[in-house]
Amino acid sequence: MAILLTGITAATMQGGYGLIPDAALLIEGETIAWIGPRSAAPKAQTIDLNGKLLTPGLIDAHTHLVFAGNRAAEFELRLQGASYEEIARQGGGILSTVTATRAASEDDLIAQSLPRLDAMIAQGMTTVEIKSGYGLTAEDELKMLRAARRLGQLRPVTITTTHLAAHAIPPEYKGNADGYINEVAIPSLSAAKAEGLIDAVDAFCETIAFTPAQVDRLFTAARALGLRVKLHAEQLSDQSGAELAARHAALSADHLEHLSAEGIAAMARAGTVAGILPGAFYTLRDTHIPPITALRAAGVPMAVATDCNPGSSPMTSLPLAMNMACTLFRMTPEEALLGTTAHAARALGLADRGTLAPGMRADLCLWNLTHPAELSYRIGAEALHKSIFGGHLDA
Amino acid sequence: MAILLTGITAATMQGGYGLIPDAALLIEGETIAWIGPRSAAPKAQTIDLNGKLLTPGLIDAHTHLVFAGNRAAEFELRLQGASYEEIARQGGGILSTVTATRAASEDDLIAQSLPRLDAMIAQGMTTVEIKSGYGLTAEDELKMLRAARRLGQLRPVTITTTHLAAHAIPPEYKGNADGYINEVAIPSLSAAKAEGLIDAVDAFCETIAFTPAQVDRLFTAARALGLRVKLHAEQLSDQSGAELAARHAALSADHLEHLSAEGIAAMARAGTVAGILPGAFYTLRDTHIPPITALRAAGVPMAVATDCNPGSSPMTSLPLAMNMACTLFRMTPEEALLGTTAHAARALGLADRGTLAPGMRADLCLWNLTHPAELSYRIGAEALHKSIFGGHLDA
Ligand SMILES: [Zn+2]
Ligand SMILES: [Zn+2]
Repeated sequence: MAILLTGITAATMQGGYGLIPDAALLIEGETIAWIGPRSAAPKAQTIDLNGKLLTPGLIDAHTHLVFAGNRAAEFELRLQGASYEEIARQGGGILSTVTATRAASEDDLIAQSLPRLDAMIAQGMTTVEIKSGYGLTAEDELKMLRAARRLGQLRPVTITTTHLAAHAIPPEYKGNADGYINEVAIPSLSAAKAEGLIDAVDAFCETIAFTPAQVDRLFTAARALGLRVKLHAEQLSDQSGAELAARHAALSADHLEHLSAEGIAAMARAGTVAGILPGAFYTLRDTHIPPITALRAAGVPMAVATDCNPGSSPMTSLPLAMNMACTLFRMTPEEALLGTTAHAARALGLADRGTLAPGMRADLCLWNLTHPAELSYRIGAEALHKSIFGGHLDA
Repeated sequence: MAILLTGITAATMQGGYGLIPDAALLIEGETIAWIGPRSAAPKAQTIDLNGKLLTPGLIDAHTHLVFAGNRAAEFELRLQGASYEEIARQGGGILSTVTATRAASEDDLIAQSLPRLDAMIAQGMTTVEIKSGYGLTAEDELKMLRAARRLGQLRPVTITTTHLAAHAIPPEYKGNADGYINEVAIPSLSAAKAEGLIDAVDAFCETIAFTPAQVDRLFTAARALGLRVKLHAEQLSDQSGAELAARHAALSADHLEHLSAEGIAAMARAGTVAGILPGAFYTLRDTHIPPITALRAAGVPMAVATDCNPGSSPMTSLPLAMNMACTLFRMTPEEALLGTTAHAARALGLADRGTLAPGMRADLCLWNLTHPAELSYRIGAEALHKSIFGGHLDA
């Protein structure tokens, strides 16, 4: 059955905002069948929304949403003046999340992650990427990916899963990152793939994590299995990770605070999306802003994501990530919204969403706003009227 | 009828967190009748909350919540590279809000402000201060204050109103700030007081607004009417506003990015609360952090508020303001929660709320959290289970 939505201002996100002031949108099944000015709309059963802003459903292209425990105690200790060393002695840092995640059952992980997913949904998210990376054994990585997949059965959102065994070196491989890549990260790829648990493969390329050579081996193995890759690149230093990612035709390279001109050129040539993560920049009180102006000039599409994780970005709101992208990184509100729609879809390799156009999946957000710039301008607001997932008006 | 809440961890906010792990709280009418360990609780009809965190209802001690229009277009223009001059030529800045607010009816103001109030309520706010300051004529200032009062009838929150005619110099008084203070700001005090519209009087003491001498005259007139005062002080430069505020026994001096040691000492002596407003610091990309360490050392109580306003802080979430106070200003999560409970109550001169203790008003928040540090740690989360206003369990 076809339903025509009217009484909307539509931001189609084709090119830029692609605004249609007095718009109508026809939904047939799970798909957008038609969009255009209301005056030209086909006849159909109509729902008048009386002045809402319509955008594509928001897409979060970079999260670590599935984990156990939280790091509030560590956050508090640090603000009370504890040193990193003291916090590490008390079991803080990423390894505290690894310990908690290993100890958690798949059901525990789901129970603890669901409130985060629901918070994101309440802020307009309809598709979310979820990474593994706190298990760091083959079995615990698979457990995280299974939990992520099952979250997608509990809520009407689309979840894409990313294998991130190469996130950190676990204690049992301390000083032996090569061994970890060879014995855990690479072998777990085929098992996870066989179970249908991997949509992409990611790694953390940094002095405190994995070298470009190690990542290169992982990516080569991933691509031999027909998997797409993405990379945590140049967050703390320039490792030429963007160039490495581009050589492997990566979907995206993310963070990029220390990205070089060569990295930008390589990403532009390869069509690799820049994943912009202002929540981590904000939380870590980083001062090194990613080269937004140069990325813009080079025509590299920029995605904006929450990076939701328990340490450096305990954030569950895409509109807030958009505000931070504008306020802290001087992206425009239009770029920020492209970053959570069209460009986020591209960062996930999803061609069926991110814009409002015939044939696209009818993942939609209706907002109590009049102009899409308000989405980035407001801070901590609750402007979502309703989300529509795959054309389901009663979700 | 008395109701006993159990299954809670209570943060009483007496002194610090004042945590009671397995607590019970007895509500009688609008008031807290008893609080303590569940094992010692009096017998009464019981509601078991099955593991929620209980805090006092959050108090926002500094907002400009009532206004017309928004400044999203200006936000976007600036990020597109427009200069302040170009924006001013297009009618931007505070005067655009003044123009829209003057043109709005009282009902318009209420309709436009209610979604902001509701967003704050959804994040745990139960008491909010609302300032005038976008009318800048006697009648338009009264209109704003009437709208603020009426918002308090539409929702179960407590609203305190602050007369802020001395917010900016309107175009018709350009170059004649003294005339504006004498002819508008001071005369409107008695009219507003007679109508029961003023709980406190505020001013903006800054090179771009009013001089200490002008503020001193206004405060003298206010105090002659028996009104308490508070001040926007030392935001952009040190005007010795804190000392001025302290001389007038001000409830609070707010912003304080450029506060001096003398200002801190004066506030400590006078018992003036420091109003900490990280949303404006964040939005303006300020780099001058208020002297938190020195305020702490001097024992000056610190309130944390949203400063909700259309220009420098379009923010409607107190937990987010708390996160910013910790992340950007290095306050502790305990100080941040005191800043939206006990110390915020003090900044508003309200002795009947802000802590959980017998005789206090039963304004309560129940959170889906286990420890109060999580309130400041999470960014953009939706952790509120339920608010209780004046003991009403069905609100
Ligand atoms: Zn990440
Ligand atoms: Zn203010």
